[in-house]
Amino acid sequence: MAAQRRIDLVLDSVRRLLRVGASANLLNLLQKQHPADLGQIFSELTDKDREAAFSLLAERNGRLAMEAIAELGPEAGAALLATRSAEEIAKLAQEIPSDDAAALIDYLPEDLSSAVLDLMRPRESGVVENLLEYDEQTAGRIMNPHVFALDEDLTVGEAITELQSNRDVEMVFYLYVVDDRRHLVGVTSLRRLLLVSPETPLKRIMTADLISARVDTDQEEVARNVASYNLLAIPVVDEENKLVGVITVDDIIDVIKDEATEDIYRLAGVSGDERVFTPARESLRKRLPWLGVNLATAFLAAGVVGLFENTIERITALAVFMPIVAGMGGNAATQTLTVIVRGIALGELTWANSRKALVKEAAVGIGNGVALGLVAAVVAWITRGDPVLGLLLCAAMMINMFVAATAGTLVPLGLRAADIDPALASSVFITTMTDVFGFASFLGLATLFIRYLAP
Amino acid sequence: MAAQRRIDLVLDSVRRLLRVGASANLLNLLQKQHPADLGQIFSELTDKDREAAFSLLAERNGRLAMEAIAELGPEAGAALLATRSAEEIAKLAQEIPSDDAAALIDYLPEDLSSAVLDLMRPRESGVVENLLEYDEQTAGRIMNPHVFALDEDLTVGEAITELQSNRDVEMVFYLYVVDDRRHLVGVTSLRRLLLVSPETPLKRIMTADLISARVDTDQEEVARNVASYNLLAIPVVDEENKLVGVITVDDIIDVIKDEATEDIYRLAGVSGDERVFTPARESLRKRLPWLGVNLATAFLAAGVVGLFENTIERITALAVFMPIVAGMGGNAATQTLTVIVRGIALGELTWANSRKALVKEAAVGIGNGVALGLVAAVVAWITRGDPVLGLLLCAAMMINMFVAATAGTLVPLGLRAADIDPALASSVFITTMTDVFGFASFLGLATLFIRYLAP
Repeated sequence: MAAQRRIDLVLDSVRRLLRVGASANLLNLLQKQHPADLGQIFSELTDKDREAAFSLLAERNGRLAMEAIAELGPEAGAALLATRSAEEIAKLAQEIPSDDAAALIDYLPEDLSSAVLDLMRPRESGVVENLLEYDEQTAGRIMNPHVFALDEDLTVGEAITELQSNRDVEMVFYLYVVDDRRHLVGVTSLRRLLLVSPETPLKRIMTADLISARVDTDQEEVARNVASYNLLAIPVVDEENKLVGVITVDDIIDVIKDEATEDIYRLAGVSGDERVFTPARESLRKRLPWLGVNLATAFLAAGVVGLFENTIERITALAVFMPIVAGMGGNAATQTLTVIVRGIALGELTWANSRKALVKEAAVGIGNGVALGLVAAVVAWITRGDPVLGLLLCAAMMINMFVAATAGTLVPLGLRAADIDPALASSVFITTMTDVFGFASFLGLATLFIRYLAP
Repeated sequence: MAAQRRIDLVLDSVRRLLRVGASANLLNLLQKQHPADLGQIFSELTDKDREAAFSLLAERNGRLAMEAIAELGPEAGAALLATRSAEEIAKLAQEIPSDDAAALIDYLPEDLSSAVLDLMRPRESGVVENLLEYDEQTAGRIMNPHVFALDEDLTVGEAITELQSNRDVEMVFYLYVVDDRRHLVGVTSLRRLLLVSPETPLKRIMTADLISARVDTDQEEVARNVASYNLLAIPVVDEENKLVGVITVDDIIDVIKDEATEDIYRLAGVSGDERVFTPARESLRKRLPWLGVNLATAFLAAGVVGLFENTIERITALAVFMPIVAGMGGNAATQTLTVIVRGIALGELTWANSRKALVKEAAVGIGNGVALGLVAAVVAWITRGDPVLGLLLCAAMMINMFVAATAGTLVPLGLRAADIDPALASSVFITTMTDVFGFASFLGLATLFIRYLAP
């Protein structure tokens, strides 16, 4: 709370200084902020204010300005850069680590990004281009290529001297050890260097059995490894096991957040890269296709209702209660689906234990169906005075809740087995199923027992 | 993939060795595993096999056995412990860090947990009881109370000597500096110790401006700080700013995952602490109340349909198309709601910029309504041969999509302002709204224009 309050105060001052045009004071205030705080401040300004504040800061302290917009995420950051000249962008991009620069440049319009790469210092544009060669969402794409490594033939004393002379290397809690052709052969820690005498060969205190990621490993798997083995960083190697980069835990946290967002979004039919302030046109373009698929399936469900129009014509009360059967099935299915999809994502649910999950969900589905079906039956009986209608409603709800539970378990597991993201397509399948089964079971039972129903 | 394959192979061997009762070989195999891998292996075994493997390992290597079940999560871990005697549990609990022990003991049945605490060594049960005093989901509850700190009056050389004599302290990348009454006064790093001469006073190389958490800070806020400032650990202080613990980034990753799971679950009406293998009875108890609320709102929506029964009696085609209006509104609302709720959770959406989000979502809602309404109108016209029915369907969908977008934005923001978790109650509100508005707008328009509709 304290941090948030401080940021709010700074934000007020920034707005005020922008309004009165007090550039020197504003610059002074901005320069005192932590990049993460600046990122948040930028995100809360209007587009115009953000542009003004960024321009002011970029001229004086390009590095801080770039670190702040890296915090905004590559899409919003690139949007802020895109209004500037390629020369300016190239100069600014050189101020931040190449992995952050690569992420931003990747989101610039095609022609601008190649102009920027042409204008950067060759060594740096080379590194950035290299990173952009790797597929999105792989270890190669998110790694920091500036990784500090020690030669396996050094002694501990020599290693410490080398560390002391590389003052600008960040985050060296793990010290990776390589052979003369830069193959990764082991790891040790600063701490361990301090616990032995300086003449000890590095080889003696290193651990050869270490966890690394290959450049083409999916970032989600990298994150899972870092999380389960409680690592602070993971070395990245190429096909020949040569050390080419490192991914630190702060980047892994971003991956974990992004993957969770993607899961939440996909369950709701929103594409993973949408954000609150993605432009309306873009959001529309991203959401419409999914709603279009939903519309098609809604017509399918409507078609099922259409089959029973004669029954509805005779007993209009059915039209009143049929959305309850379909809707409650949909709600129960969403609960099951969510638990299953998240269980798969967290690695708790696998093929091996899926039968156990199915049995459990089926039991929960029957329990829900009985409990809610009985309540609904009583309400229908009381409000319409027709016990048979209540009975049919109860039976249809029990059937649909059972369908919801089994489909909610089997569909995501099936998609997973077919190598499709279970979160991606599940909810549209499931809602269609519960709508179709809900309408069909309720209206079908009503048609069968129509002679017992009060007209 | 490689790691997963290796685990699958080990899992097969474990099952085989359990079947033939080859205890010595099994113990040998289990002891070679990393605790995280063992945790996954345990989670994939049947209850009976898991119990057998755990018992075997616990007798020989209590520490590894406990580390493995700590990986299962406190609920599943406590369930595995609960069948053993208090003496055994007390002995085992002393093998792992007190924060992990506290989490497990907290999930044991009341009388068992107090028996366990009575039987533990007084010093250790004291630490555990202390941790359990703090509220759930606060920094105090998840911190590790064994935190290494250096006195501010030491020189760098003395600090290194002290480090060397405390070999069992884990994870000392940040070195916290305290005064003689253990108030937190600064932080430095191992790395910085190496860059200066041994006579340098520690005070000279420490940073006094550091980020800490108070024991009562919510874990979600702690996680947000660690993530935005890219920390590897955060010190925890009491009301008087005395250093009482440390939370490392691996625990923060667990918090981030749990909070994401909670958000995903709440949007679907599942309680945050449910897992795939929560027993069926427990899951039923947790999910039924939410479905009960949904049933009540479903009857509310059914009541709206009931108001128009006369209209439906005359034009049964309305019963066929009305679920489309309600359902598509629900889908669009879910998209908006998800983006807004996640935006709030990630800190991207605040009161300050909420108007911008509302305008955007309203625009998307209108766009969706026009596009999908027109398609639906054409389909209705073609299939029923009634252009007026198509027009009404289109108008109702546009109205409902607009309602969906604005409600999907305003309801979570309103809940947030009222200090209620936006994810918790939003979806039930929203679906009710889109059902009620969907039915009311479509059937209401049809009632108004009934004379133009084909019977």
